Amino acid sequence: MSDSLKIVMAQENFLVGDIAGNARRVIESALQAKAQWGADVIVFPELTLTGYPPEDLLLRPSLQGRVAVALKSIEDQVKDIAVVLGCPILDDGALYNAALVIQDGRQVARYYKQNLPNYQVFDEVRYFQPGTQGAAFEVNGVTVGLTICEDIWFPEPVAQAKACGAQVILNLNASPFSIGKLAQRKAVLAQRAQEVGLPIVYVNLVGGQDELVFDGASMVMESDGTLGFEAAEFKETLIPVQFEQGPKGLTLNRESLPEAATPMEEEACIYEALTLGLRDYVNKNGFKGVCLGLSGGIDSGLSLAIAVDALGPERVEAIMMPFRYTSQISLDDAALEAKNFGVSYQILPIEGIYDAFIGALSEPFAGLKADKSEENLQARCRGTLLMAISNKKGSIVLTTGNKSEMAVGYATLYGDMVGGYNALKDVPKTLVFALSEYRNRVAGYPIIPQRMIDRPPSAELAPDQVDEDSLPPYSDLDQILAFYVEQDQSADEIVSRGFDRDVVYRITRLVDLNEYKRSQAPIGVRVTARGFGKDRRYPITCKWPAGE
Amino acid sequence: MSDSLKIVMAQENFLVGDIAGNARRVIESALQAKAQWGADVIVFPELTLTGYPPEDLLLRPSLQGRVAVALKSIEDQVKDIAVVLGCPILDDGALYNAALVIQDGRQVARYYKQNLPNYQVFDEVRYFQPGTQGAAFEVNGVTVGLTICEDIWFPEPVAQAKACGAQVILNLNASPFSIGKLAQRKAVLAQRAQEVGLPIVYVNLVGGQDELVFDGASMVMESDGTLGFEAAEFKETLIPVQFEQGPKGLTLNRESLPEAATPMEEEACIYEALTLGLRDYVNKNGFKGVCLGLSGGIDSGLSLAIAVDALGPERVEAIMMPFRYTSQISLDDAALEAKNFGVSYQILPIEGIYDAFIGALSEPFAGLKADKSEENLQARCRGTLLMAISNKKGSIVLTTGNKSEMAVGYATLYGDMVGGYNALKDVPKTLVFALSEYRNRVAGYPIIPQRMIDRPPSAELAPDQVDEDSLPPYSDLDQILAFYVEQDQSADEIVSRGFDRDVVYRITRLVDLNEYKRSQAPIGVRVTARGFGKDRRYPITCKWPAGE
Repeated sequence: MSDSLKIVMAQENFLVGDIAGNARRVIESALQAKAQWGADVIVFPELTLTGYPPEDLLLRPSLQGRVAVALKSIEDQVKDIAVVLGCPILDDGALYNAALVIQDGRQVARYYKQNLPNYQVFDEVRYFQPGTQGAAFEVNGVTVGLTICEDIWFPEPVAQAKACGAQVILNLNASPFSIGKLAQRKAVLAQRAQEVGLPIVYVNLVGGQDELVFDGASMVMESDGTLGFEAAEFKETLIPVQFEQGPKGLTLNRESLPEAATPMEEEACIYEALTLGLRDYVNKNGFKGVCLGLSGGIDSGLSLAIAVDALGPERVEAIMMPFRYTSQISLDDAALEAKNFGVSYQILPIEGIYDAFIGALSEPFAGLKADKSEENLQARCRGTLLMAISNKKGSIVLTTGNKSEMAVGYATLYGDMVGGYNALKDVPKTLVFALSEYRNRVAGYPIIPQRMIDRPPSAELAPDQVDEDSLPPYSDLDQILAFYVEQDQSADEIVSRGFDRDVVYRITRLVDLNEYKRSQAPIGVRVTARGFGKDRRYPITCKWPAGE
Repeated sequence: MSDSLKIVMAQENFLVGDIAGNARRVIESALQAKAQWGADVIVFPELTLTGYPPEDLLLRPSLQGRVAVALKSIEDQVKDIAVVLGCPILDDGALYNAALVIQDGRQVARYYKQNLPNYQVFDEVRYFQPGTQGAAFEVNGVTVGLTICEDIWFPEPVAQAKACGAQVILNLNASPFSIGKLAQRKAVLAQRAQEVGLPIVYVNLVGGQDELVFDGASMVMESDGTLGFEAAEFKETLIPVQFEQGPKGLTLNRESLPEAATPMEEEACIYEALTLGLRDYVNKNGFKGVCLGLSGGIDSGLSLAIAVDALGPERVEAIMMPFRYTSQISLDDAALEAKNFGVSYQILPIEGIYDAFIGALSEPFAGLKADKSEENLQARCRGTLLMAISNKKGSIVLTTGNKSEMAVGYATLYGDMVGGYNALKDVPKTLVFALSEYRNRVAGYPIIPQRMIDRPPSAELAPDQVDEDSLPPYSDLDQILAFYVEQDQSADEIVSRGFDRDVVYRITRLVDLNEYKRSQAPIGVRVTARGFGKDRRYPITCKWPAGE
């Protein structure tokens, strides 16, 4: 038995569907790990070759052929280091979510994921059969056990790996970010490590993929449940860690560790998640940049900040589209913020367009009172202008509505809801304020004008309108929504917490009624415990009683 | 042992989420089955009480309490007839998709579905644990076995029911319609019946639910695999069937059967599916009616026919929105069709609106050439007009794009894609033509003007534009799309069938690239083997190689 083992944790950003490109990255990183650190093993995230989640690409018959080609290229080009990667494997007619070990040009071990998540955003049972056995391989005289993501949340797979002789456990992950998730991961890893008395090397994917963002934050949990090393969040990084044989088994060599990342405060984490999600959506899909409507309100104000931090000011275009209800304050604040962030800023009034619509509608609208239709029309004039600009320039429209609005349908379909991506889709309004304050603290001055944060929110679709004419105060609204949407509480339970009965019943009813609107909303990254997306699958046609 | 058993098959339309209302229907139908036919048993479809699919309503903690209240009401009010219904049951912390038997005021038998579909549109593993045992109950001296939907596609559950002593098998279903599905069901039922030598009573849900339509077509398969009785498709009906004890076991009494439905030709089935899907979407969600843009083309032409057949002419409003590229033929044909169907018809030109947009965009568009942006703008002027009318009148906009267009992205997001529902969402263009011819055959004259069917399809967004400038002939396009989208064939396989290589690669690439558009499309009913919806879950951000 040797007295040390050097493992490189490859916390990288793999692109969904790009099997050949992902294989090239595996090869490059493996060669670097060998050359730079003399590593014995390099470990990649779950489903390295396909990216995560590959969704129905897993059903395409050409998949296995392409995976085989990719594996062959790795076997041919990487020697003298064990490569542990994830990919789908078809075995005897069944598809498995597998971890493979490639050593000296051949596959020496294979593990099939046993616990397939099929809840929240996950659909793994749609594609995979569960494995049933532990697996381990030997490198440099050390036996190394294999597990994949969800497996680590249950005791059996790690125990099986130990039964295979494992002295250290590898865990390949594609675990998406949500608020509070990192602390849960640490707690479960500590418990697992202690159960078997073995260290666990937890490697997580990083990057944005449609409605998910993977936060990295790979780590080493020591056999006594203490955190040995924690990698940066939201960043690609290769991390060499060395284990030494000691009286209590394999132990992390703390002398040789790279510098640990400074733990991030919660708002910084969320802000990074939103920024990375947007950056990867725009860049992975090959868009030139984004344009967005800047209204002078805080939602578009924060969206602009995120867009600039994600893409740089030269790739962001802000458009102010005033109408007769737009206040001077809004015009001033929008212009100031655009200047603060150094982005292109244009003013395109919608008055003439709106009037042309009203003229065309004079016959069908004859004799009917003004109502929400006219407010929606303003929003749709703006949405159509933004789409025209994005079409002409090859950018995408950044939608700027927040989660609280989308929950209760306080948004216009094909109006302010137009866009390819919504950075704030899963950000409740109260968190919009908190993140804006956070961004200003980072800047050291109100780069997002303070008045945007302080003034009462308004859609400015009618004279002197403020959101709280139609909605309860956002501090109440967001709590009610969290209880109902994220925690599945009934209206009566929420009322018993001290909220007004009529308000709770009205709000929960609005959530139910607006499923049709959300079903056509652009995607955006999930950051809460339950986003509107794959995470929450409700029927549109539905007669569920209000508030149940 | 008695010598006969009378079963009523309750092929009814249950509303998702309306547990109390669905329980009332169960009670009414059970009382009617007893009073009118003296039935011993009434059998309802799968998940009778919640409707199907209830999706994440199944995760709400209040569900079990409401199911319990509903069951109690049935136990209290129905006597002297056994009620077999479906509902979710929480048992020892696990949720099951159950069939319950209520007899003389109490639950006498319970079966848990064993085969949980988690493919195509189905997500049952997200919610349910699989059962492991057969179940049967006794009524009038006959032992009756229980199975649920997917169970019948595998040999074990029916064999288990027989092992419980069953002399006849009940199968509770929520099986959605798709083209060719009925023949598959008959074949599998015949095989199952013959395997165990027992008759099977197959009861299916009827009605539209978001992107699914359930076609009913309940049936009795005799123990020798001959079809004993077939109920009407797409209609609610209570069907009494009587079994007699004979030398070869329980046999259907063919003398006492109600009149059998005339089998429908394929186009009639599809047309009924589309009509029922739209009718239920509009009525179950409480909309007054629909409005749609009538362009003079065949997609909106067929959509109008479906809308009128679904809702009646007084609930349908057609709007022609001409622009400088609209031909006189289009104006004439639209007006003629509106007259033929007796619907309200208005002409709202978009010229002034379009010009106002172009004026407002003069600065951002300065120096840039005209391109697709201007075409999209026309479509968005129309979409916004339709939305304004629907908002003002409490109707929904009926989207009129077909599946072929949506597959390749030949549609404008927030333009012709606006709407609450799209009757043609899963109808390829060649089928649009076939269904139009079918509808005209039913009418006995070209109620859809023949020229709409015969002239070359055009979006009329540019001078003398026809679809086949941008796309291959629809007869080729639809075949390529079926091979790629529905059958997962690679571009090379499709080329080997005799299609042009460049065309196949371009089309399959367009399918991949337009996932973002489809992700924001309105829902519509699925009729093919694979629709764009829950049936096909592709990443938007994706670098899958073209045509793999």
